[in-house]
Amino acid sequence: MGLATRRMVAEREALIQIDFLTAILRTSNIRYSFFMEADDEFMREALTEARAARDKGEVPVGAVVVLEGAVIGRGHNEVITLTDPTAHAEIVALREAAQSLGNYRLAGAVLYSTIEPCAMCAGAILHARISRLVYGADDPKAGAVVTHFGICSTDFLNHRVMIDGGILEAECREVIQSFFREKRKTDTSAERCESG
Amino acid sequence: MGLATRRMVAEREALIQIDFLTAILRTSNIRYSFFMEADDEFMREALTEARAARDKGEVPVGAVVVLEGAVIGRGHNEVITLTDPTAHAEIVALREAAQSLGNYRLAGAVLYSTIEPCAMCAGAILHARISRLVYGADDPKAGAVVTHFGICSTDFLNHRVMIDGGILEAECREVIQSFFREKRKTDTSAERCESG
Repeated sequence: MGLATRRMVAEREALIQIDFLTAILRTSNIRYSFFMEADDEFMREALTEARAARDKGEVPVGAVVVLEGAVIGRGHNEVITLTDPTAHAEIVALREAAQSLGNYRLAGAVLYSTIEPCAMCAGAILHARISRLVYGADDPKAGAVVTHFGICSTDFLNHRVMIDGGILEAECREVIQSFFREKRKTDTSAERCESG
Repeated sequence: MGLATRRMVAEREALIQIDFLTAILRTSNIRYSFFMEADDEFMREALTEARAARDKGEVPVGAVVVLEGAVIGRGHNEVITLTDPTAHAEIVALREAAQSLGNYRLAGAVLYSTIEPCAMCAGAILHARISRLVYGADDPKAGAVVTHFGICSTDFLNHRVMIDGGILEAECREVIQSFFREKRKTDTSAERCESG
């Protein structure tokens, strides 16, 4: 069997294992005692990142990458600060994680994001071979994991991701909603100044 | 009218203008004399980038960002070299273009890529407000512009991109196919060594 074929077989076996584990976790209560506490903890770290974005005037989204219980990458939205259209929280966190691991593939890692990832970030999650994605609130406009496209659940990209949304959902949603509430207020008062 | 509303109206007007221009260009021959020569020229620059990736042992994809006839960003796939799962040609070129322009939004710019962009890169193209995407060969596996998803043509993301595929298609396809042909040969001979 050629190396390429062996790699394909190994990838297929890994997918079957993930499917099997997902099926067990989804039908049992083990998941809730096993995952949820750690999920809350790491989502709080992602929320801290989101607030760091807000303090810079950036749309407040935060993310952390966790491997074997340790944070190996952190990021918050820095599109304006870094003059970089790709500097979303998830991308920044994935790049840092790859650097700290010395590997561009992060097999076994979990990505926590306060908001459902967009198409760019969902694609990056696949390229980085993230095993599990945990996010806070859905993004009804640009969300590309559940809301639109279903990018992390497709069959043609040789990698599937376990997905759990709704972790600390209210808190994650509030951070972003209060940011836009404040922004609208500022915009309106700026306009009032403009129009005398 | 509030600032947010005015911004929405302006964005909607811009979309209508793009639709109008696209309609004219698609139904006239002007496009062929006006665009095609420059397209070939810039796609050749993207091909040079693709070959730079190949020389580093990376999957050979190249991209350039062009604004008002000048290249403002270049990139080739450097995922392994930079230990960065997001370092696709398009992402590298977009980041460089934003830096050189001092703006994370690249309105009016054209992105040339040798291969149809994946979900991550298609998403980045939207975030960067690229006006036109020109690519060489379709990617039947991961292409997310025409082959899957149609990420650059959606209505819900407030930005639409003019798309032209098939520019120097044969050459773009050959660069990538010959890379994988060579790789398969190397893999097979490596296996022969392994098995004695």
